[in-house]
Amino acid sequence: MVIAVIPFRPENPKTRLSCVLDQAEREKFALMMLRDVVEKTTLAGCSTILLSTEKYHVDGASTVVKELGLNEALNEFLSETDEPILIIMSDIPLVTLENIESILSVESDCAIVPGRGGGTNTIFIKEPSRFRVDFYGASFLDHMNIAKEAGLSVEVIDTFRMSTDIDEKEDLVEILLHGNGESRRYLESLGFTISVNKGRVGVHRDSHEEAL
Amino acid sequence: MVIAVIPFRPENPKTRLSCVLDQAEREKFALMMLRDVVEKTTLAGCSTILLSTEKYHVDGASTVVKELGLNEALNEFLSETDEPILIIMSDIPLVTLENIESILSVESDCAIVPGRGGGTNTIFIKEPSRFRVDFYGASFLDHMNIAKEAGLSVEVIDTFRMSTDIDEKEDLVEILLHGNGESRRYLESLGFTISVNKGRVGVHRDSHEEAL
Repeated sequence: MVIAVIPFRPENPKTRLSCVLDQAEREKFALMMLRDVVEKTTLAGCSTILLSTEKYHVDGASTVVKELGLNEALNEFLSETDEPILIIMSDIPLVTLENIESILSVESDCAIVPGRGGGTNTIFIKEPSRFRVDFYGASFLDHMNIAKEAGLSVEVIDTFRMSTDIDEKEDLVEILLHGNGESRRYLESLGFTISVNKGRVGVHRDSHEEAL
Repeated sequence: MVIAVIPFRPENPKTRLSCVLDQAEREKFALMMLRDVVEKTTLAGCSTILLSTEKYHVDGASTVVKELGLNEALNEFLSETDEPILIIMSDIPLVTLENIESILSVESDCAIVPGRGGGTNTIFIKEPSRFRVDFYGASFLDHMNIAKEAGLSVEVIDTFRMSTDIDEKEDLVEILLHGNGESRRYLESLGFTISVNKGRVGVHRDSHEEAL
């Protein structure tokens, strides 16, 4: 069985969204994105594990707490299991079931989904003990090199939906345009709409009064 | 036979790259991106037409000059042909042959590739007389609505490579990371390299002295 591992930090997440969401909203929004991801990994038949920095519960996943940095926690986890592992970020709510299924069906030893700007949004590793992660910076290139040095074949998965991680205000427009899950509904409940200004597409939030 | 139509403005293109490329370099860079796209449409067996605002030549394509705005030129072109048309932007140099082939094989009446931020990077229309384009602004939503109103079924194609249009300095990193064509080689010849600063991945250009 494939284990889907989703790293998650419940407290004060997504600080680059502070310009449009306060801390409580960011914490709830991060949970909604997480739920959109967990729904898909569960539907795809993965055993889903939340790798959290503190105790936390989300339906559909078991929680493992490791009070470690992202790389340390994931590498410790990789060393502790022999099952194929799908490491998937919690902030890619546009992911679909078809996306996950196509990753799990690759013939190569690993699959990597690059994020925009050189990041890595998902890694699938059939033999986790042969791999280690190195997130932050140009992690896509780092992960390609780590796989190469380990003699592992890699398929790079070409998907807009999974390459779209939500970090900044500008990213919210992608959820309003292409999302259909809980993160979109939550943004809409807060009064977010698509706005077009001088040809540029962005998001606008109606008066905070109701939402706050 | 499918006609691939590539709108192109040869003079002073990509002004948002002026911070790192002068006008002559932007014109050459736009040509390199165009060549990367034309190579793929040609390999896919399309008859490739450059829809240009002025006389221009690129190997592999015929040029049609229309001194009109983007929408007017494309809609006039759509009304003038009965062949299936693939409208594809010239600034998506990461496009692969597999991308094009998968679009041309859709069963629906149209296929749309969204760009990041609500744009449209490619439209495939089997019966062009039933469609009209409306670029600028949130064109992805506009094109979905135009298809719906015309009773045309649409498949939205999920591809990072084709959703990545190159407009700003930050976009250049995607070419250096994921490109393997002429645009990448041209950027490298100008001294562009990937840089990582405080965990953010960007591009750096070595001294202009040699390049200018």
